[in-house]
Amino acid sequence: MISSKWTKLIKSLHLKKYRKAEQLFFVEGEKAVLEVLAAGWPVRALFATEAFSTQHAQALNTGGILQQCSSEELVKVGTFSSNNAALAVVEIPQWPLFSAKAQSWTLVLDNINDPGNLGTIIRIADWYGIKHILCSPDTADCYNPKVVAAAKGSFLRVQLHYLPLAGALAHANMPVYGAYLGGENVHQLKLETAGGYIVLGNEANGISSDVSQYISRQITIPAFGGAESLNVGIAAAVICDNLLRLSQ
Amino acid sequence: MISSKWTKLIKSLHLKKYRKAEQLFFVEGEKAVLEVLAAGWPVRALFATEAFSTQHAQALNTGGILQQCSSEELVKVGTFSSNNAALAVVEIPQWPLFSAKAQSWTLVLDNINDPGNLGTIIRIADWYGIKHILCSPDTADCYNPKVVAAAKGSFLRVQLHYLPLAGALAHANMPVYGAYLGGENVHQLKLETAGGYIVLGNEANGISSDVSQYISRQITIPAFGGAESLNVGIAAAVICDNLLRLSQ
Repeated sequence: MISSKWTKLIKSLHLKKYRKAEQLFFVEGEKAVLEVLAAGWPVRALFATEAFSTQHAQALNTGGILQQCSSEELVKVGTFSSNNAALAVVEIPQWPLFSAKAQSWTLVLDNINDPGNLGTIIRIADWYGIKHILCSPDTADCYNPKVVAAAKGSFLRVQLHYLPLAGALAHANMPVYGAYLGGENVHQLKLETAGGYIVLGNEANGISSDVSQYISRQITIPAFGGAESLNVGIAAAVICDNLLRLSQ
Repeated sequence: MISSKWTKLIKSLHLKKYRKAEQLFFVEGEKAVLEVLAAGWPVRALFATEAFSTQHAQALNTGGILQQCSSEELVKVGTFSSNNAALAVVEIPQWPLFSAKAQSWTLVLDNINDPGNLGTIIRIADWYGIKHILCSPDTADCYNPKVVAAAKGSFLRVQLHYLPLAGALAHANMPVYGAYLGGENVHQLKLETAGGYIVLGNEANGISSDVSQYISRQITIPAFGGAESLNVGIAAAVICDNLLRLSQ
């Protein structure tokens, strides 16, 4: 059973202000909970169905914090429409301050609002081996349950840093690529050096003017048909794929 | 006002069986409705707010079928959580039978279940100038309101054909590329010829065995990090981007 104290706490963690105050977030579903445990992240509470507890007894043997509950209870406190497995309440990690490593790629998100887009971009970063994402303070919160769900475990391997972007990019000592309509074709790009920053702008308004001034190269995905634009998650993937290909 | 007859009809069109029976679907929101009208698709009924009707009087002058209503009524009959513009009831187009054109690319979707993924893939096809998508009969319906919303007008320019895929691919006279884990790296691919089929499999199970037998080349997006997989919409975009780049 999930006590009323934990029910209240988990429900409060749907909102950013309580996640911030408690420095906790939650992870739902079989795969993501097992990944959190395997990664050794500090889990404050762990709720699982009897069937799931039995099936994964060894993985869930985490110092006596496991509590059994019904799948209905998991659905009631969480955001999934069905969850026959588990939910973990996890401490928000404190990452070391970001410093750019030579020849490495860093994603920069300027006011990405949609949690699904942010989660997708975290997963893409992880696929392409990008370890750091700089986010403007108005970008969606990476511990929003929808972001965590869309990131599919990749939030464990990618560090997100929320900070004013103009300040961070003002001291960039690597190229700063920005996704625009009408920039250089990413198929034909010649890179001066491997590594740099890849800036993606807001879903509706693109890259803001105070960030634009630090873009050293405007790049574009070539269009062959009639669509006016691509979703920002799709654009992130295609740009990462091209830049990683070109820096091999 | 939206009459009770139209309210009932539009609400029924949320479901595939009524869309099929009536051969109608609906399009919501400012941009998509204007695109439908500009494309000259046969619109059976058009509901718009007074403000939107005034602002777009010329575009909405479609032979007397325009009816004014409130934005609350648009929300009540449709799927959007807000709609201050319009909703159009549109006839489902009858596309000519598909036949592959030399050097052109065709997407093939084997049981893509999620409407958001299908809409995203239609938009990607349109971006890359791909005019035809073959869909297995169990792929999501392209006139589902969620697909229409995610496709952002691209459903007007891409023709979807629902048919048994194995039968269609058995007669393919161009390469059939299939997205797998562990195939040829798309960054290093050499194409024998421009054009062909690009097969994408189900979100959970990949390409089915009866379709697999017709794949002539298994291809893969190279991974650089820890993520196990990419969303099928993301994979579609990266593969199209590489194949179009290689066939320039």
